[in-house]
Amino acid sequence: MQRPDSDATGAARRVLIVGGVAGGASCAARLRRLDESASITIFERGPHVSFANCGLPYYVGGVIADESALLVASPALFRTRFDVGVETQTEAIAIDRSMRSLRVRDLRSGATRDERFDALVLAPGAAPVRPPLPGVDLPGVFVVRSIPDTQRIRAHIEERRARRAVVVGGGFIGLEMAENLLHRGLAVAILEKLPQLMPPLDPEMAAPVRAHLEAKGVALHLGDGLARIETRPDGGLAVVSEAGLRLAADLVILAIGVRPEVGLARDAGLTLGARGGIAVDARMRTSDPAIWAVGDAVEVRDVATGADVIVPLAGPANRQGRIAAEAIAGRTTQFRGVQGTAVVGVLGMTVAATGASEKSLRRAGRSDFAKVYLHPGHHAGYYPGAQPIHVKLLFSTPDGRILGAQAIGTEGVDKRVDVIATAMQLGGTVHDLAEAELCYAPQYGSAKDPVNLAGMIAANVLAGDMPLADWERLGATDALVVDVRQPAEFAAGAIPGAINLPLPELRARFAELPCDRTLWLCCAVGQRGYYATRFLLQHGYDARNLSGGFTTYRALRDAALVP
Amino acid sequence: MQRPDSDATGAARRVLIVGGVAGGASCAARLRRLDESASITIFERGPHVSFANCGLPYYVGGVIADESALLVASPALFRTRFDVGVETQTEAIAIDRSMRSLRVRDLRSGATRDERFDALVLAPGAAPVRPPLPGVDLPGVFVVRSIPDTQRIRAHIEERRARRAVVVGGGFIGLEMAENLLHRGLAVAILEKLPQLMPPLDPEMAAPVRAHLEAKGVALHLGDGLARIETRPDGGLAVVSEAGLRLAADLVILAIGVRPEVGLARDAGLTLGARGGIAVDARMRTSDPAIWAVGDAVEVRDVATGADVIVPLAGPANRQGRIAAEAIAGRTTQFRGVQGTAVVGVLGMTVAATGASEKSLRRAGRSDFAKVYLHPGHHAGYYPGAQPIHVKLLFSTPDGRILGAQAIGTEGVDKRVDVIATAMQLGGTVHDLAEAELCYAPQYGSAKDPVNLAGMIAANVLAGDMPLADWERLGATDALVVDVRQPAEFAAGAIPGAINLPLPELRARFAELPCDRTLWLCCAVGQRGYYATRFLLQHGYDARNLSGGFTTYRALRDAALVP
Repeated sequence: MQRPDSDATGAARRVLIVGGVAGGASCAARLRRLDESASITIFERGPHVSFANCGLPYYVGGVIADESALLVASPALFRTRFDVGVETQTEAIAIDRSMRSLRVRDLRSGATRDERFDALVLAPGAAPVRPPLPGVDLPGVFVVRSIPDTQRIRAHIEERRARRAVVVGGGFIGLEMAENLLHRGLAVAILEKLPQLMPPLDPEMAAPVRAHLEAKGVALHLGDGLARIETRPDGGLAVVSEAGLRLAADLVILAIGVRPEVGLARDAGLTLGARGGIAVDARMRTSDPAIWAVGDAVEVRDVATGADVIVPLAGPANRQGRIAAEAIAGRTTQFRGVQGTAVVGVLGMTVAATGASEKSLRRAGRSDFAKVYLHPGHHAGYYPGAQPIHVKLLFSTPDGRILGAQAIGTEGVDKRVDVIATAMQLGGTVHDLAEAELCYAPQYGSAKDPVNLAGMIAANVLAGDMPLADWERLGATDALVVDVRQPAEFAAGAIPGAINLPLPELRARFAELPCDRTLWLCCAVGQRGYYATRFLLQHGYDARNLSGGFTTYRALRDAALVP
Repeated sequence: MQRPDSDATGAARRVLIVGGVAGGASCAARLRRLDESASITIFERGPHVSFANCGLPYYVGGVIADESALLVASPALFRTRFDVGVETQTEAIAIDRSMRSLRVRDLRSGATRDERFDALVLAPGAAPVRPPLPGVDLPGVFVVRSIPDTQRIRAHIEERRARRAVVVGGGFIGLEMAENLLHRGLAVAILEKLPQLMPPLDPEMAAPVRAHLEAKGVALHLGDGLARIETRPDGGLAVVSEAGLRLAADLVILAIGVRPEVGLARDAGLTLGARGGIAVDARMRTSDPAIWAVGDAVEVRDVATGADVIVPLAGPANRQGRIAAEAIAGRTTQFRGVQGTAVVGVLGMTVAATGASEKSLRRAGRSDFAKVYLHPGHHAGYYPGAQPIHVKLLFSTPDGRILGAQAIGTEGVDKRVDVIATAMQLGGTVHDLAEAELCYAPQYGSAKDPVNLAGMIAANVLAGDMPLADWERLGATDALVVDVRQPAEFAAGAIPGAINLPLPELRARFAELPCDRTLWLCCAVGQRGYYATRFLLQHGYDARNLSGGFTTYRALRDAALVP
């Protein structure tokens, strides 16, 4: 019988785990598989362990009809399958590091007791932010963290026959809640302090999400924060914004973000990071060698920017739990950091991203990068039903390493972001994307998949074959914008000041273009503009392509980034 | 004005391209973008250039209703957009290498002429195999290569009111044709010489495809080849198999495979490879420095096995066309080889693969590899609608490099194969798959995505944490098969000779198991078997897991690989 790391006396090593959802539950199950001899106990403040917190919005919406579906594993399963003790409704309240002892409180009886440990794993998660503003604790104001939260929301909707909801916050949870409340028949308004939805995205990539939600009937109030929540004379609520807007609501969801639960760690004197999360090494060990920490409460390295970040994502939390278990079992697996791959589906649109955004790169002080936009179909155009995917790819210059990608569309979005995320994880370049050999049949992709195209376009930029015009300088340049679309396309809408010279006429008419001005080429999505750029460059013009063409222009304009 | 590589006299360099579909068309367009000065002409034997040959089955089926949708680019577009000459219905019949001259024949007039070249690109493609058997040229017997082929098939179905079709060959084209003929209301039988459908797959991975097609009403005759085709007295056809089966048909599709069109190259004395394709270097140059070749007719390196192969896939053909153009323009881009990523959709099922199969590895003489099977849901199980994906992952031992993957299912199959293909392309290991940070929201994936699970399971094998039982020895071992599923699952079907000890009872009852026999653990998909294996190993047993569990057993049994 193997007893890795069991102590010299032969007594079972005691491993205590605080928090039994993603990271904590993964850690317990993995540790048992590696070490039959350890005594393992999970303490969970709530009534459930290992529940599907990413499913909560869908349980509110009724898409997931049965609460029991959210319970991935029960305490009984942990006991019979893994011989792991689970103490629910038991809160960890203090760590005595010198005694290696954890004080816990039974929330039903109020009784406290001390539990000795050889190894302690903190997986406390993160709590939804409730800003210190008037009215945030009123009845009818909810956060979405636990199954009881969602039960309360469901009950409130039914009992009050709620018709109008205000969601404060337009990020992942906010959008998922908006979709699900709409699905339940409520009218939904979103109040978001930033001037864009989906804060992790760059603003122009979020712009189509806004248009989509508005088309679906969601009332959007962007660039305006929550000031207070009041009770209306009729018993309902009113959400008052910083700008003085007053939104009537029968239900308010606070989806402003989450804050790592570091109280226990901080009180025990464990080192916190610059961002306020629990500091850990690559094996998830805290500043105390007997204590590990995993999940939404820890600070980890962003592999794209090198910055320390707190990323509340289930995938990394699960993997961190495994790594902590492996470390406790004496193995040397290391966490590679996070790249922030994330996806949200909202009313038929998929929004996904991986790695750095342009704004996160700029925040990190980087300027050695370039970006391209493209809008390919999600599968071959000749097969019915192709839907555009809007892609932004960021890559470092001059080496072409992939830094990040954002994509939105209705089909095949997650696939392309997953592929780019994988290439990025392995240190891939845009050339690797260009050469990727991906599944192609007409209903699945294209001979040149959107991923290939993104890589090819970026490679053209790196090779100097496609000099890029600088969208940000559109209002401040004396370059001439030459739109090479057909006259009917141009007439339907164009960049102010642009002239029209359709691509099929370019070879015959290019001499009409001024030799002494920089030419910025524009088409619908960037492809014809690229062809024109290549032609003009080889005929001695200073030509640059507006990446993504008029489709990107509209998104930039909607995001107020160009005139 | 740039004139890369234009000759010293200032005369435009003449580039001739034979074949104007995927590789040839890509080459022409790319070369023009790199070199405005060259004279570029495409010679195409057929009536169309740059048509969507991967869409042909769907045009037969009426899914693609309009033939014009298949025409990706017209000769007129090549002329106006790229100043590329296109001569359709013009066949290249001989190359005079010493004179750098190509003899072409106008198929309408029969007239021949010689065209001088500085660079010649051969993109002749591959022709469907018509085996030299009686009746293969009868009216009503078709191959699927060109738009005229599909027009003839459509006309034949309509004019003859065809009701019954026999498809000879159960590979990609055969399955797509079966789906589309079924879609048009025909009864469809498939005759396949191998004992499995989808020859690139390992037999057990193809087994569910067979069951799926049979459930959809396709009559399958596997392990039986075509002997001849006869005319029936009523004017229809009869397909006679080698085993003497006689299948009545109003329509026969030959989808046996393709053969590279190397006649022109061979007659010109260009070097052919061991497999009979045109030999090229990494820049797609043939043995003549003035002649390049791309697409289905060339022999390239299989990056998974190192073997030379001929792979008729559109993606590599397009990229090869670009690389040849870049070489002609003086650049040094290299083709990285193929890994054979491919997908087919058939009647709601998706079948995809990348890299080596087990049989291709064995053919290449390799034994330093392992394989795992898994059957995860395509998204989180707690969200409604999760469908299983059946995955086989092959990896080298002991370094864990990914060698290949096969997956089948109804949703999300292409995504997982694309991710694994990308990791494989970049030299990734199963550890990289385990750590991949992929899109997760419940409708898209799982916190542990199927890709992560495949990597984690394989990593467990590499680490020695999960010794594998050897499926192939199932009938020939004295190991005791211990099935840890629940009694009701066991009663519904189990491996012959297995005993049942449900996982929840294992901790209490494991002493009942014999200490002196190897134990092979089995469950439904491999997960509970893994938990039991870990437990028993740590209690001193020689335990091994049957990867993929009973689900894999059924596939192996259906493929006659286990008793």
